[in-house]
Amino acid sequence: MGFTYKDAGVDTEASKEALERVSGLIRSTHDSRVLSDLEQFGGLFGLDDYPDAEGTVLVAGADGVGTKLKVAFRAQKHDTVGIDLVAMCVNDILAQGAEPLFFLDYLACTEIDDDMLEEIFSGMVRGCRQAGCALLGGETAQMPGFYDRGEYELAGFALGRVRRKDILPRKNISSDLRLVGLASSGLHSNGFSLVRRLIFQEHGYGIDDYIPGLESTLAEELLTPTRIYVRPVLKLLNEFDYDIAALAHITGGGLPENIARILPRDRKAVIYEDSWPKQNIFKFVQELGDVSSQEMFKTFNMGIGLVMALPAEEADRAVDTLQELGVEARVIGDLKAGQGEVEIV
Amino acid sequence: MGFTYKDAGVDTEASKEALERVSGLIRSTHDSRVLSDLEQFGGLFGLDDYPDAEGTVLVAGADGVGTKLKVAFRAQKHDTVGIDLVAMCVNDILAQGAEPLFFLDYLACTEIDDDMLEEIFSGMVRGCRQAGCALLGGETAQMPGFYDRGEYELAGFALGRVRRKDILPRKNISSDLRLVGLASSGLHSNGFSLVRRLIFQEHGYGIDDYIPGLESTLAEELLTPTRIYVRPVLKLLNEFDYDIAALAHITGGGLPENIARILPRDRKAVIYEDSWPKQNIFKFVQELGDVSSQEMFKTFNMGIGLVMALPAEEADRAVDTLQELGVEARVIGDLKAGQGEVEIV
Repeated sequence: MGFTYKDAGVDTEASKEALERVSGLIRSTHDSRVLSDLEQFGGLFGLDDYPDAEGTVLVAGADGVGTKLKVAFRAQKHDTVGIDLVAMCVNDILAQGAEPLFFLDYLACTEIDDDMLEEIFSGMVRGCRQAGCALLGGETAQMPGFYDRGEYELAGFALGRVRRKDILPRKNISSDLRLVGLASSGLHSNGFSLVRRLIFQEHGYGIDDYIPGLESTLAEELLTPTRIYVRPVLKLLNEFDYDIAALAHITGGGLPENIARILPRDRKAVIYEDSWPKQNIFKFVQELGDVSSQEMFKTFNMGIGLVMALPAEEADRAVDTLQELGVEARVIGDLKAGQGEVEIV
Repeated sequence: MGFTYKDAGVDTEASKEALERVSGLIRSTHDSRVLSDLEQFGGLFGLDDYPDAEGTVLVAGADGVGTKLKVAFRAQKHDTVGIDLVAMCVNDILAQGAEPLFFLDYLACTEIDDDMLEEIFSGMVRGCRQAGCALLGGETAQMPGFYDRGEYELAGFALGRVRRKDILPRKNISSDLRLVGLASSGLHSNGFSLVRRLIFQEHGYGIDDYIPGLESTLAEELLTPTRIYVRPVLKLLNEFDYDIAALAHITGGGLPENIARILPRDRKAVIYEDSWPKQNIFKFVQELGDVSSQEMFKTFNMGIGLVMALPAEEADRAVDTLQELGVEARVIGDLKAGQGEVEIV
C-alpha cells in the first residue's frame, strides 16, 4: 500500500463529515439574498434589495480574536470565540456606517475535532444572527504540525454596504459634538496577551478559579463574548434618524487611538474618565501588574466598546434611546477645538 | 514601573511602523473605486462602475495557503506565499464567473519582523495586480506564543462581482460539452502536508537540494507561486465571448472532486489522463511514497489548475485563444450522459 494524504495527517473524509454536521447551522443564517449553497467555489450574495448601485459602497473588514483563543483552549470552551470573531469584524464595518451583509470565516487546525468544530460554528452563527448577516462561506483548513491538538486559529471577514452619503465619519464634523460611550461586555477581544501573562503566568491562577471581586470564575469572565453593536446602532441611524457624525470601535489601541481615528484635524476629544463605571476585570488586571492607567487605556476598552459622536443637543436623547434598546450608554466626552488629541481627564 | 503590553510581547509601535513601511505597496493596488485609506476601520469600495445593482451578485471566497507556509519558513523565503494566498481566493471566485474587485488579508505571527512582513506583502500585492484587484485592507495580528519565530499564518478573502445572468456554472448544461484544462504552474497550494512528509521527513532532503529530475532546487520547485487565471479567463468570457458553461478551480480534492462540483446530475466527466503533460514534481512525489495514482489525483492538481467546460465546437478555438494569451491549455475531457461521476481514463 502506497503512502496516502491521510497518512500525512490530512483526513479529507473526516473533514467533509464534520462540515456536513455544521451545514444546517450555517444555512440557518441564509435568506433569499444568499444564492449559493455551501459546496460552491464562492459564496454568492444578490444585491437586488439594494438597487441604488451608484450610491452603494461596499465596506469590508478582516479581523481575528487574537490570543483570547488561548483562553478558550485553556478552558476547553469553544462556543464563544465565534461570537468574538464576528463581533470584531462587524463592529469595524459598522463604524463606517455599514450594515453587515455577510461574513466568512477561516478556521485552521491540525486535526478536525467534530465537537470542537460544532462549538466554534455555533458561536459564529450566533454572532451572525446578532449582526443580522449571513455566514456565506469560509475555509476550514487542516494543517498538520501547525497547531497543537485542541488548538486552532480563527480569522473572519465581514462585508457590508452603506450609501455613499451615509458613510461615517462624516466629512464636515462641527465643533459642538458630544461623545456617547456604549458599554462593553468586558475585555472584548483585545489585550489578552497582557491579561494571560499577568493572570496565568505571573500570578499562577487557574482558569476555573473563582475570583470574589469578579463574582465569577476566570473562564466565565475572560470568555464573555464581545458585544455586537450592529442592531441598536443601525436603529439609531435609520429608524430614529440621529445625526451621528462618527463611530469609533474601541479595539486595539483603546479609547485614545480609536477615537483619534475619527477626529478631524482641528478638533480634540476630551474624555471624562469618571463618567462611566468600569468592570472589575480592569481593576483586577491593573492591580496584578501594577499597570499604569495610561497603559490600561491604550490596551483595553476600559468598559466602552463603541463611541458615537453626535450633536450635543441629541446626545442625552440618544443615551435614552440606547437604554430603551437595552444598551447601557452614557455621555463620556466632548469634541473641542484642538489638533487631534485625545485627552482623558 | 508597571507591567506593559510590550512586556507581554505585543509591541504596537513596532507593528505600526512595519505596516507603515508596506503602506505604499498596498496603496499601489488602489484606484478611484477605493474610497478609504488604510487607517480606517473598514475598507470602502464604490460600486459606481457597476450601475446594474439589480443584476449584481457579490461573490466571496476565503482561503489560506495551508502548510505550503512551512516550506516558505524552511526556505526563509516569504515573497511568493502572498501570491499563492491571493491565487487560492481569486481562482475560487473566478470559478463562479466573478471579476475580483478586492482582497483582504489576515496575517498572524508572534512578533512582527519588518523584512518578513515586506516580503509577504510584496507577494500579496503582486497577486492582487495579477488578479486586477485592490488590496483593500486586512489585519496583522501579533499573537505571542501562538507561532514560532519566523513563522506565521496567512488567510485571505476575495470579493468579486458577476451579473446574475453570467453566474457560473450555468443552470442548463447541455450534454456535448468539452473540458479544456489550463496548465498549473506545479503543485499550487494543495497537498503540501503529503509533499513535506515524503520529501523532508521520510527521505531527509534539504530544502536547497538540487533535484536533477526537476532541474531546480526543492525550494524553487515547491515555492513556485500558484497561477492566477483571472485575466485570461475574463478575456475569454467578456472580450472573446466564449460560451463557457462552467469553471472548476482544481484545489483540494484534485480533478475528481472539483470537476464533480460543477457537474449536472445527469452528466459525467471523462478525463483523458494522457492528454496533457504532467510536471516532473508529481512523478517525483509519487515515487518517493509509492503513492497510488488515485491518491495522487485526489490530492494534487496533476498539472491542471483550472478546467473550463464549453461547447465542443468552441473548445479547440478556446485552446488557441488561451495559447495566444500565454496560457498553456488543452482539451482534456468530455461531458457525457451519466450520474455525476468523474472518470479518469
